Amino acid sequence: MPAISNKGKSMPQSPIRKLVPFAEEAKKRGVKVFHLNIGQPDIKTPQVALDAVKNNTLEVVAYSRSEGSEEYRNKIANYYAKNDITVNANDIIVTTGGSEALLFTFGSIMDEGDEVIIPEPFYANYNGFSIASGITVVPVISKIEDNFALPPISAFEKLITSKTKAILICNPGNPTGYLYSKDEIKKLAQIVKKHDLFLIADEVYREFAYDGSEHYSVMQEEGLEEYAIMIDSVSKRYSMCGARIGCIVSKNKAVIETALKFAQARLSPPTYAQIASEAALETPQSYFDDVINEYVSRRDILIEELQKIEGVKVAKPKGAFYCIVELPVNNADDFAQWLLEHFELNGQTIMVAPAAGFYSTKGLGLNQIRIAYVLKKEDLIASVNILKEALKKYNG
Amino acid sequence: MPAISNKGKSMPQSPIRKLVPFAEEAKKRGVKVFHLNIGQPDIKTPQVALDAVKNNTLEVVAYSRSEGSEEYRNKIANYYAKNDITVNANDIIVTTGGSEALLFTFGSIMDEGDEVIIPEPFYANYNGFSIASGITVVPVISKIEDNFALPPISAFEKLITSKTKAILICNPGNPTGYLYSKDEIKKLAQIVKKHDLFLIADEVYREFAYDGSEHYSVMQEEGLEEYAIMIDSVSKRYSMCGARIGCIVSKNKAVIETALKFAQARLSPPTYAQIASEAALETPQSYFDDVINEYVSRRDILIEELQKIEGVKVAKPKGAFYCIVELPVNNADDFAQWLLEHFELNGQTIMVAPAAGFYSTKGLGLNQIRIAYVLKKEDLIASVNILKEALKKYNG
Repeated sequence: MPAISNKGKSMPQSPIRKLVPFAEEAKKRGVKVFHLNIGQPDIKTPQVALDAVKNNTLEVVAYSRSEGSEEYRNKIANYYAKNDITVNANDIIVTTGGSEALLFTFGSIMDEGDEVIIPEPFYANYNGFSIASGITVVPVISKIEDNFALPPISAFEKLITSKTKAILICNPGNPTGYLYSKDEIKKLAQIVKKHDLFLIADEVYREFAYDGSEHYSVMQEEGLEEYAIMIDSVSKRYSMCGARIGCIVSKNKAVIETALKFAQARLSPPTYAQIASEAALETPQSYFDDVINEYVSRRDILIEELQKIEGVKVAKPKGAFYCIVELPVNNADDFAQWLLEHFELNGQTIMVAPAAGFYSTKGLGLNQIRIAYVLKKEDLIASVNILKEALKKYNG
Repeated sequence: MPAISNKGKSMPQSPIRKLVPFAEEAKKRGVKVFHLNIGQPDIKTPQVALDAVKNNTLEVVAYSRSEGSEEYRNKIANYYAKNDITVNANDIIVTTGGSEALLFTFGSIMDEGDEVIIPEPFYANYNGFSIASGITVVPVISKIEDNFALPPISAFEKLITSKTKAILICNPGNPTGYLYSKDEIKKLAQIVKKHDLFLIADEVYREFAYDGSEHYSVMQEEGLEEYAIMIDSVSKRYSMCGARIGCIVSKNKAVIETALKFAQARLSPPTYAQIASEAALETPQSYFDDVINEYVSRRDILIEELQKIEGVKVAKPKGAFYCIVELPVNNADDFAQWLLEHFELNGQTIMVAPAAGFYSTKGLGLNQIRIAYVLKKEDLIASVNILKEALKKYNG
């Protein structure tokens, strides 16, 4: 019997995958499970996007251009212009989600064994994309005590080797909710220019910046044109995760030309989803205002309630819709499973993402979980109450 | 300025990519270009699939399951049962096109430097997927004189090394149109079992088998359960190339479990396209009967007309909708460009795919082109007439 690859064996499973059967069992027992574990928003997709697909007049669902339709790319460029990012259609390759954008980027700039430095905790699938691409993630630790701010530049410099090809940030961050300041982006710009590295920024949560803080893109930083690669996606912005449309944006011509070759090999991004995504660009500002207000009030109530629990530590997120929560437990993995297997409060329990999967350094994040505040406020309040009572029982 | 990767530099461009600007120039001059170069059928997508998307009631375009929805996978399994292929939903992972299915397969069974043996000429993007996956294509030559039948087993055995992990076939074949016989599949089954290799079969053209010949799938071959991996797609079957839905099918649990990890990392296949693909399974048989009749008559007229041209050699395809044509020219690449740049007949010309890009062995296929018979009959007749007159002038 032929064997699978070492690469395949090394591919990580999603941090919550092994909890799924326990959640299913709990539901079978009649327990209601609040899902704090996933980044699938409950927010409605903009009507203009839904309607565009319902009213489409395709008779042949044909390939689009490998780089995405010119019309759509022109419109994305307009959207960026409104966000103070000056690019044109030729700087953009439309991809099947942010996932494919990152895979093409890794393939375009890194060879087997090359290294990318990523502040941890980071989006767990960066591990999977790295292994699939044959490259190595080198983590630089950011801390809950600092709200997960950018680690000092000296910490990055200690990690740079001849194999280092890029620094990757997620801004605002999943799972931390941290929003990098203009000053922090400038520090990163300096270091990548000094060491001739790419700066990859996953900016899929751009719109989700709270408390009046402004998102500062790597694409806005002057002098960074040849170094900056932005990863983007419609998934969170328009609550259409299932569309699977993202893009790579860079002023570096060699990067775009190379990524295009990867794009050509897989033929085209999905056609229906491009119709939805193009229409979504017409979403009125009121939609975003409502969504942001909703997330801010969810965040505020979540953090307020969490801070009332003894022994719980939480950084107040400034963006996205996640937060990392430190719990008075030794092993959040066990605790998360126990919540589903052995606990209920008035017939309800919660599913959370153990945070160890968001760290690359062994032993970090063992007492942390990630909470996605993608549920309505009353459910968040009920969820935090369940967490409080569960901790009492678990530690009692 | 940071550099792109060697992998990126090695990624091949599509064999027709460099012809595209010449085709655009020709159109600007007012010349009508018949596109014989692409596998984008002009056939209408089944109404049932188009309607399902138009009538969808999604309010949140959410992620589907990474492996595809259970309902859709169950229905695919039923479709296979009708094709004498016995699998269940757990043997199937829904992917973003056949492209992603092949990428996940390569990642799951091969490590950097491993080898896959492929009869050439082969679908050019196999090269791109191989480079992206860090693996090496080892070609085994099939010949136009033999209609591109399976090369002798001894030719395969000469190429097997400790790095060989799989044999990959496309059946029916793009670009050859060759349909492997049951006997040929049995020969391949023997060799992969003897040498402990996987047999990957790209069967996206399954329905396009002509002249009463039956398609025999690697999934039908008894005793091959642990060795066979089938790549499939809705693109050609339902003329919905832009949907981007395919799948991996295997009875080998380790392969499916491993491919699932790659699928989880990229989250999910596109949701709208799954709606279309699920509905497409209800396409009435009359649709396929009409389509097959149309392709057979296109093929017949194409081959008949081509055979009238002096110095042209063509193998009669038994499946798919391509054929390889040998021309009385030294360099089909130059000829293809010349057709667009310098030739027209009554204001018309043709765009063809030079076949060298479908070969891995340097120097092979230089005098061959691939023709996709995805145009209506009168356009095919006009196209072959253009080819005939062009050859006279080019060689005159």
